[in-house]
Amino acid sequence: MKENKVPYKIYLDESEMPEKWYNVRSDMTIKPPPLIHPGTRQPMTAAELEGVFCAELVRQELDDNTAYFAIPEEILSFYKMYRPSPLVRAYCLEEKLDTPAKIYYKFEGNNTSGSHKLNSAIAQAYYAKKQGLVGLTTETGAGQWGTALSMACSYLGIDLEVFMVKGSYEQKPYRREVMRTFGAKVTPSPSDQTGIGQKMRAEFPNTSGSLGCAISEAVEKAVTTEGYRYVLGSVLNQVLLHQSIIGLETKAALDKFDIRPDIIIGCAGGGSNLGGLIAPFMGEKLRGEGDYRIIAVEPASCPSLTRGKFAYDFCDTGMICPLAKMYTLGSAFIPSPNHAGGLRYHGMSTTLSQLYDDGHMEAVAITQNEVFTAAVEFARVEGLIPAPESSHAIKVAIDEAKKCKETGEAKTILFGLSGTGYFDLGAYQQYHDETLSDYIPSDEDLAKGFANIP
Amino acid sequence: MKENKVPYKIYLDESEMPEKWYNVRSDMTIKPPPLIHPGTRQPMTAAELEGVFCAELVRQELDDNTAYFAIPEEILSFYKMYRPSPLVRAYCLEEKLDTPAKIYYKFEGNNTSGSHKLNSAIAQAYYAKKQGLVGLTTETGAGQWGTALSMACSYLGIDLEVFMVKGSYEQKPYRREVMRTFGAKVTPSPSDQTGIGQKMRAEFPNTSGSLGCAISEAVEKAVTTEGYRYVLGSVLNQVLLHQSIIGLETKAALDKFDIRPDIIIGCAGGGSNLGGLIAPFMGEKLRGEGDYRIIAVEPASCPSLTRGKFAYDFCDTGMICPLAKMYTLGSAFIPSPNHAGGLRYHGMSTTLSQLYDDGHMEAVAITQNEVFTAAVEFARVEGLIPAPESSHAIKVAIDEAKKCKETGEAKTILFGLSGTGYFDLGAYQQYHDETLSDYIPSDEDLAKGFANIP
Repeated sequence: MKENKVPYKIYLDESEMPEKWYNVRSDMTIKPPPLIHPGTRQPMTAAELEGVFCAELVRQELDDNTAYFAIPEEILSFYKMYRPSPLVRAYCLEEKLDTPAKIYYKFEGNNTSGSHKLNSAIAQAYYAKKQGLVGLTTETGAGQWGTALSMACSYLGIDLEVFMVKGSYEQKPYRREVMRTFGAKVTPSPSDQTGIGQKMRAEFPNTSGSLGCAISEAVEKAVTTEGYRYVLGSVLNQVLLHQSIIGLETKAALDKFDIRPDIIIGCAGGGSNLGGLIAPFMGEKLRGEGDYRIIAVEPASCPSLTRGKFAYDFCDTGMICPLAKMYTLGSAFIPSPNHAGGLRYHGMSTTLSQLYDDGHMEAVAITQNEVFTAAVEFARVEGLIPAPESSHAIKVAIDEAKKCKETGEAKTILFGLSGTGYFDLGAYQQYHDETLSDYIPSDEDLAKGFANIP
Repeated sequence: MKENKVPYKIYLDESEMPEKWYNVRSDMTIKPPPLIHPGTRQPMTAAELEGVFCAELVRQELDDNTAYFAIPEEILSFYKMYRPSPLVRAYCLEEKLDTPAKIYYKFEGNNTSGSHKLNSAIAQAYYAKKQGLVGLTTETGAGQWGTALSMACSYLGIDLEVFMVKGSYEQKPYRREVMRTFGAKVTPSPSDQTGIGQKMRAEFPNTSGSLGCAISEAVEKAVTTEGYRYVLGSVLNQVLLHQSIIGLETKAALDKFDIRPDIIIGCAGGGSNLGGLIAPFMGEKLRGEGDYRIIAVEPASCPSLTRGKFAYDFCDTGMICPLAKMYTLGSAFIPSPNHAGGLRYHGMSTTLSQLYDDGHMEAVAITQNEVFTAAVEFARVEGLIPAPESSHAIKVAIDEAKKCKETGEAKTILFGLSGTGYFDLGAYQQYHDETLSDYIPSDEDLAKGFANIP
């Protein structure tokens, strides 16, 4: 074991916990372009957005200039139940890899939702309650976001209806039961409760649903139900704002030991985890106060950054949501059944898309078996079964640590371990049984999706 | 929200972590009676035990007098990966119950094995490795112990074969996959790999197995394989010794804020969790330095303390293991399929049995629906889905807090939250669907089990 002056886990005292969220857009010279109305094709106004989202969240969504937003006292209290999350020095992994690199990971899985999603769920539920709403709707694919939001709504005493992609509803009953335990109404999508759901069921009677369709259903239900609004767990600016708590805690913990990461790595689906982790570091980089290599990791089966187009596109399949300028594979792109459900989205946060397009971060895409090989290697030494999503970051962190072994450089590598894989063991089983697919879409597959971009 | 000078979670710094285990037997005036050889019916000697267990563990098993055992450096290092576990002030539960009681719980579920079992698993694997053994065998029912041991063996690089009760192997594939991820060989029991397994399969071709049979198989495999020993996750003195880390950390954390619990509550199956939590408090009680009400909670379907006999009995179904003097329902007692798999054992730790018989602690038995009602109530306010086992303690903690509301007493209640329920959501589903059994064995049912006690 190496000399370890830095403890295995760096915790923050409650007094050291961040009390403000950081808005990375405030430091961007080129701001992410605005959302566009699907009908008028004009920038969405606050009034238009308030039909779908809570007023305060709309304010956060549209504010490109305020650097810090105070975290309300009630949310800070909730955060204290499961935060600060540990920043772990991966001594055992370093030893296994025999690398001079110093590896740290910020572990967001130590809460019952099993991932970082809770950080934004409680914020969005809080503002809904404060506005006097009675309930929320949302969609969930693999179930992390629905689980997190059901915990937040249960805590605050407001209703929640979750449209869960039908395939997941049937194949992942455990996440469904977690949501039920927290009192949420869980409806398989497409359902007969919305016009879009009815249309999909009529057209495709055997469909197992999709995230894009579930979003459309949840939005329709929210705008047609008195006292309800819709909430989304990723992609949006407001979500990246709330998730900045990940990066702010990480930076505070590293600062206690005068550590500066050379490389920062996170998995990227809609961008909530990566955007949160990198926020304060990207801020320093944009302000010229520090230089970091920042790497987004995505599945080769759904490569929005590495093979997508930077264009205005619909956020949902039903095309009732606003258009966002983002790296996209097209709203009709249907990703293969990769087990990293949280990375199976056709688009990417507008903020991260802009930062990537401006050269402030890199992106790589990796295949599924590579991901699980890294996950199992990590689990066996660090004693933690990571989510398939998070394992994308692990894979690249291991690769970078191996490069350090070759060059002899003692780089400091930080990655985000966004959640646990306890509900993904079916995927691990397939990996052990060597039946996991390494599908990569062909250029023709991608062309079909691109054709759908307006 | 109440004034909260005590933080939500009391952590210990690494420097404050206990470096010794505490042996409660050292403070017992009446020691637990020795294990008896199944053949000779004489007290087991160290030499006899060393055919089954590692030498150092035998020393710990037989030592009734040494108060403290130094925790080896390598085990302390491993503990640092997931310990100290948080001691949580249940502010939200207190508020929900509107009680003047102050409720604390020690949460042992924040590691991938999902429970406290890892505390002893790493110790037992460490001593095996130190002795130069190549592998271990064990049994697992619901899978917590097998998971924990597979993590420990993976970390130390020694082989592990787990005999998993066949019913669980088939119905709980997720825990099986966790063990495979950590490199363990998992065999459904009864198997064709042992004489006892072959006999069981011949007699009962359709059996789904039992914990007692899996123990017999694992022991047989260990004693007939060169360089192997058997390890057990509960009941034994050595296990209670290792698990004292739970209570020692709890006491250290409470002492930082000058808090003394009035009531200490834990679920009790074989006794590992309860014995560990109460150890230092029971020590004070036995030495006349403090008075605590200590409550063991068991399932009404498997009520060894509340309805069992205090007698010498076999620890396994195959009757090849030593006999222990314990509260027992008889080694042939087959508990109903209660979802708290970890509490489904016919006997109880000899140490806890003696302490109970001597009046140093109380015991209560509760039915399954009561348990899940408490679990869901707890989950919705504390944001954490507890294991069915742990929820037995929650139920009684809530009951005691409600009594405080009636009397106006601001008692301090401490309970052990031994693990998470992430792999038990099938049970939660049955609770939500109102199909959970509240079976309580009749006196006739118990008489059949008692008839088997030698």
